[in-house]
Amino acid sequence: MNAQSNRGTGSVLGKTRVEAFSDGVFAVAITLLVLNLQVPQLAATVVSRELLPRLFELWPKLLLYVLSFVIVGIYWVAHHNTFNYIKRSDRILLWLNLLLLLCIVFIPFPTALIGQYPEQQISVVIYGGTLVITGLVLQLLWWYATSNHRLVDRDIDPQLVQRATRKNLTAPLIYLLAIGVSFLSVQVSLIFFILVPVLYIFPSRIDQDWTLRPIHSIDEARGSADADADAGLSEEETSPASRMSPDER
Amino acid sequence: MNAQSNRGTGSVLGKTRVEAFSDGVFAVAITLLVLNLQVPQLAATVVSRELLPRLFELWPKLLLYVLSFVIVGIYWVAHHNTFNYIKRSDRILLWLNLLLLLCIVFIPFPTALIGQYPEQQISVVIYGGTLVITGLVLQLLWWYATSNHRLVDRDIDPQLVQRATRKNLTAPLIYLLAIGVSFLSVQVSLIFFILVPVLYIFPSRIDQDWTLRPIHSIDEARGSADADADAGLSEEETSPASRMSPDER
Amino acid sequence: MNAQSNRGTGSVLGKTRVEAFSDGVFAVAITLLVLNLQVPQLAATVVSRELLPRLFELWPKLLLYVLSFVIVGIYWVAHHNTFNYIKRSDRILLWLNLLLLLCIVFIPFPTALIGQYPEQQISVVIYGGTLVITGLVLQLLWWYATSNHRLVDRDIDPQLVQRATRKNLTAPLIYLLAIGVSFLSVQVSLIFFILVPVLYIFPSRIDQDWTLRPIHSIDEARGSADADADAGLSEEETSPASRMSPDER
Amino acid sequence: MNAQSNRGTGSVLGKTRVEAFSDGVFAVAITLLVLNLQVPQLAATVVSRELLPRLFELWPKLLLYVLSFVIVGIYWVAHHNTFNYIKRSDRILLWLNLLLLLCIVFIPFPTALIGQYPEQQISVVIYGGTLVITGLVLQLLWWYATSNHRLVDRDIDPQLVQRATRKNLTAPLIYLLAIGVSFLSVQVSLIFFILVPVLYIFPSRIDQDWTLRPIHSIDEARGSADADADAGLSEEETSPASRMSPDER
Repeated sequence: MNAQSNRGTGSVLGKTRVEAFSDGVFAVAITLLVLNLQVPQLAATVVSRELLPRLFELWPKLLLYVLSFVIVGIYWVAHHNTFNYIKRSDRILLWLNLLLLLCIVFIPFPTALIGQYPEQQISVVIYGGTLVITGLVLQLLWWYATSNHRLVDRDIDPQLVQRATRKNLTAPLIYLLAIGVSFLSVQVSLIFFILVPVLYIFPSRIDQDWTLRPIHSIDEARGSADADADAGLSEEETSPASRMSPDER
Repeated sequence: MNAQSNRGTGSVLGKTRVEAFSDGVFAVAITLLVLNLQVPQLAATVVSRELLPRLFELWPKLLLYVLSFVIVGIYWVAHHNTFNYIKRSDRILLWLNLLLLLCIVFIPFPTALIGQYPEQQISVVIYGGTLVITGLVLQLLWWYATSNHRLVDRDIDPQLVQRATRKNLTAPLIYLLAIGVSFLSVQVSLIFFILVPVLYIFPSRIDQDWTLRPIHSIDEARGSADADADAGLSEEETSPASRMSPDER
Repeated sequence: MNAQSNRGTGSVLGKTRVEAFSDGVFAVAITLLVLNLQVPQLAATVVSRELLPRLFELWPKLLLYVLSFVIVGIYWVAHHNTFNYIKRSDRILLWLNLLLLLCIVFIPFPTALIGQYPEQQISVVIYGGTLVITGLVLQLLWWYATSNHRLVDRDIDPQLVQRATRKNLTAPLIYLLAIGVSFLSVQVSLIFFILVPVLYIFPSRIDQDWTLRPIHSIDEARGSADADADAGLSEEETSPASRMSPDER
Repeated sequence: MNAQSNRGTGSVLGKTRVEAFSDGVFAVAITLLVLNLQVPQLAATVVSRELLPRLFELWPKLLLYVLSFVIVGIYWVAHHNTFNYIKRSDRILLWLNLLLLLCIVFIPFPTALIGQYPEQQISVVIYGGTLVITGLVLQLLWWYATSNHRLVDRDIDPQLVQRATRKNLTAPLIYLLAIGVSFLSVQVSLIFFILVPVLYIFPSRIDQDWTLRPIHSIDEARGSADADADAGLSEEETSPASRMSPDER
């Protein structure tokens, strides 16, 4: 087993277990969001008349379920991408990762809060504040890993580091704006939260740019095999690998 | 570890992590279904008299637990099979997969609803509607991956793609029928939901066809080992495909 | 990658994902057991006086938490061992496995029931009945996999198959006895449930027997490396491998 | 894939599945902690006035969420490190691991208790007692694995074993102190619980010692890659060990 395969197959045990544990935490946190949707409890005499209107009243919770699911999904994709570039790990990274997971696991609570009291400004502040902090912790982790090439390859593209940084900071900035706007209008501020997933799901101009690049050769592709399923916060750099000829995988 | 084994062991990290995360989400969602079964709270004075009848009243919830467990199980098997054929991944696949998981995670809610109010037509519409959308998202993912051989092998059997498509669309069609029937009779419509698991669990004629072929030797089996546990939505296609050209996987 | 390593490293993708999904389900189900332990809700005026006695009242639930945790743990170990011997998988195995998981995920409900109403005979019947069915499904899976060497190696020791069968059936038999005894005395029947973990945790005579065997050679050990962490329902056969010289792992 | 890589990639299936299952249990247990944070239920007429103060009342629960999350995180890191040194497994290890997981899964309950009644001494005793037992079980597992080199490499540094033991016992000792102090002042005792994470997160003098050594080249690092993410209860020992003789792991 050589260094090549170490990197390619994720056989660095420490990193693999960190990723597996993180995936588990993300999976549970994202699934707990559905617990905010509770079936209305109605007396047998009124159920046929009141069930439908009571279900309609759940729509803010349903919207928040979808929104938070997608937001946690974006963070999972970002986590995924970040750890594709991280080649080593140390105890500080481990703790930053736990701090990030602490934020992720917390998200069901502000989601429940804003789902219950969508018209209260404090809900927006707490929901937005949680997402701002989560985004900043992710960027802190990225900064820690990349500064002085601490935990990434020495030949990592500096532009990639910068662009991922910019992308990592975009979401917190929009959430901060949403919090600001909530002082004027709570309703309008909610639109900002929907804006972020839309921004991350639809490919940016840079994404479209690189998909036009020529297919990479076998040797180039091998090293970057682990960058395969890339998307999200820094997906623009990784996908050339996924475009390589299929018989090389 | 060379390219060969990379293919065989699913060491394309990106795809592996997507599968691991999806497995985690499926596992949590399928387990949350049991939370709909709540122990009846009874006063000490009446417990010996009322516990048994109150437990019997849980039977629709118990039936729904089993039904939804099996339905989520079928989708897990289908997800499993689909990703066996997907050899590459890109950001759109990642988002389609998250959309599928969003539907899967949602399933405990309509399950709780129909378990609580099995006689209400709106329950059938919401339960059935969720399953229709889930099935269509799965088919969308399959269509996206296979059209123009975007994320699958170039020599994938076109018949396999078609048959999997047909199987992917069978369940949503039956659920749509169930919703239609629910306007006439809610009780009858529930039978349709039970029909789908029965259809998918018992092998279809095609399944029986290929299982009659002579058992392959250990050496032949090696190449197709990853297609081994195939079953469910498109299980009839996987085994012939995995035998065609093991070096292509 | 040859057949040897296929078996040794669990690179049979299908089987690996089935195990990963099963592990996830087991992990969630075993963790949900703690949700039955709820902090007593007390008014501020009485909390200092009533908290301690109310916590003491939780002891049946605490005992049941430990008992069910250990029972699910035993089934996980048994699942682990069973799948160590299973070398191939097919759709029927997949469905039997889902049926087993359906039983495992259900366990938190009868655990909550018997924790809430430990003195009611119906609780014992439902708790014991669930465990009987779970055990029988496990044995059904083992029987399906081993009969005619359907999914196991052709040279599997027939004695091993028999002994695992006997061990698989011991627990359901004791649970059946417990159900029978519950008609006479509910309290006495609960002792039977505690008996099973004790039986499985302490090594049986056969276990002690084989640990005295001489250390196996390198070549013998290699093939059985995947049987390493064996314990529980059929652990007596596998451990010689774990005794092999450490420099071979 | 040869014996060499077997060691490097954790392909000893038994150990791998034990770790995967443990990771799953840790992930679920750590995520369930957020369920203690419940959105206050308020009537529509008072919500704008009472929501903010009611949210502020949640601060002990929020603090306990963070504290327990970090404590479970520390145990996960410790579990991770411990299993890096464990090269074989047997049934007793499997049961000790299940016992450890039983303690971990229990943690959400005392966390909810102390979050609900932070001023009650019994809360401190139960919370602290759970953590003492958890720490002792971890040490028992470590002692079992290392005594007579039962499940670790024969040339493991005896100093490493001792230092990990000392670190494993530090936390339970502080928790015991906290329980003792709680008889004098419940408030002061809570500070002790916060002390432990601080001790484990900030690197000790030994940690700083070895991190000052020159950074190893990529080629040297290869062999010790699996010790990479080390941190927590015994992190100071892992790196020197992994440098000593990479071919021994």
